[in-house]
Amino acid sequence: MKALEEKISQEGQVLPGNVLKVGSFLNQQVDSVFLKEMAKETRRLFSGEGITKILTVEASGIAFATAVAMEFSVPMVFAKKHPSANVSGEQYSASVFSYTHKKTYNVAVTKEYLTSKDTVLITDDFLAGGNALKGLIDIANQAGAKIAGCCAEIEKGFQGGGDELRARGYRVESLAIIESMNEKGITFRK
Amino acid sequence: MKALEEKISQEGQVLPGNVLKVGSFLNQQVDSVFLKEMAKETRRLFSGEGITKILTVEASGIAFATAVAMEFSVPMVFAKKHPSANVSGEQYSASVFSYTHKKTYNVAVTKEYLTSKDTVLITDDFLAGGNALKGLIDIANQAGAKIAGCCAEIEKGFQGGGDELRARGYRVESLAIIESMNEKGITFRK
Repeated sequence: MKALEEKISQEGQVLPGNVLKVGSFLNQQVDSVFLKEMAKETRRLFSGEGITKILTVEASGIAFATAVAMEFSVPMVFAKKHPSANVSGEQYSASVFSYTHKKTYNVAVTKEYLTSKDTVLITDDFLAGGNALKGLIDIANQAGAKIAGCCAEIEKGFQGGGDELRARGYRVESLAIIESMNEKGITFRK
Repeated sequence: MKALEEKISQEGQVLPGNVLKVGSFLNQQVDSVFLKEMAKETRRLFSGEGITKILTVEASGIAFATAVAMEFSVPMVFAKKHPSANVSGEQYSASVFSYTHKKTYNVAVTKEYLTSKDTVLITDDFLAGGNALKGLIDIANQAGAKIAGCCAEIEKGFQGGGDELRARGYRVESLAIIESMNEKGITFRK
């Protein structure tokens, strides 16, 4: 998505440790008008797949998943990372290593919110090593749901997670794929 | 909002410890079609206030804030609860006790995303003791932003946080206000 590549080039900041800061429009501060454009593009990519649910993981994945779910007019479900008093009942769960937070989380979805009747589109803000998506794929498989594919707003192609999932046969679409980045600039995959 | 009261009555479950589980449509699983209706009602309530930004706190507040921001076509900013590698720069921060998680968090917003030029609408999924909203009000005041008001999807009126903020002069609108609840049923404020 050309407009996203331009926005990343203009507003993104490359921080030490392969961290891309896009807090001005994509997370922490979310440009809601642009978010809707990204959601529309995601719908275009996955239309005709019979999507019944959008699946993501808290916290920064929720804004994009919400917008995509609104475009598809289907429910959005987010996996929780932390035990919570308002979660009850049996859960599907998976272990996820967070690149951003440098630790392993247990992520969980209440069983009643994901079933074998669902065709899910798994979304997230970032796709780097692919750990969050792998955890969500694991959860969708536990539920017996059909996985239509995965869509990240930004994929760090050089970290390999997206290509690993593609090699396993999953359809992975990312709205922008970064081939390389450093303090001097950002290059996108053609 | 009558439709929300009906949905809470139909799908909500009262759990021990004054916990209302509405995960089937409001958090964990989010009914995106209904979410848009709630966002439209929120826009109706606060139209004409010159809102420039929607402010919330991660994680379960993000879906509602995103939908509201899309209705207003303004950015959504969420306070972060956890230190993160992709957050840099100076932060406004406040301490918040989470009723759901039974612990105190530090919540923070990067200074550049909230300024004295902003008129903010503070939103959250739940309003109970009001601690999250108080923390967000604190942050908005640190930024010198104008606070147009607060809007929660569901207020637990009997926990007093909303009325305390109203008594302090803030405009607090909640789409549904629960006056009392127990295993037998839920009563809404007239």
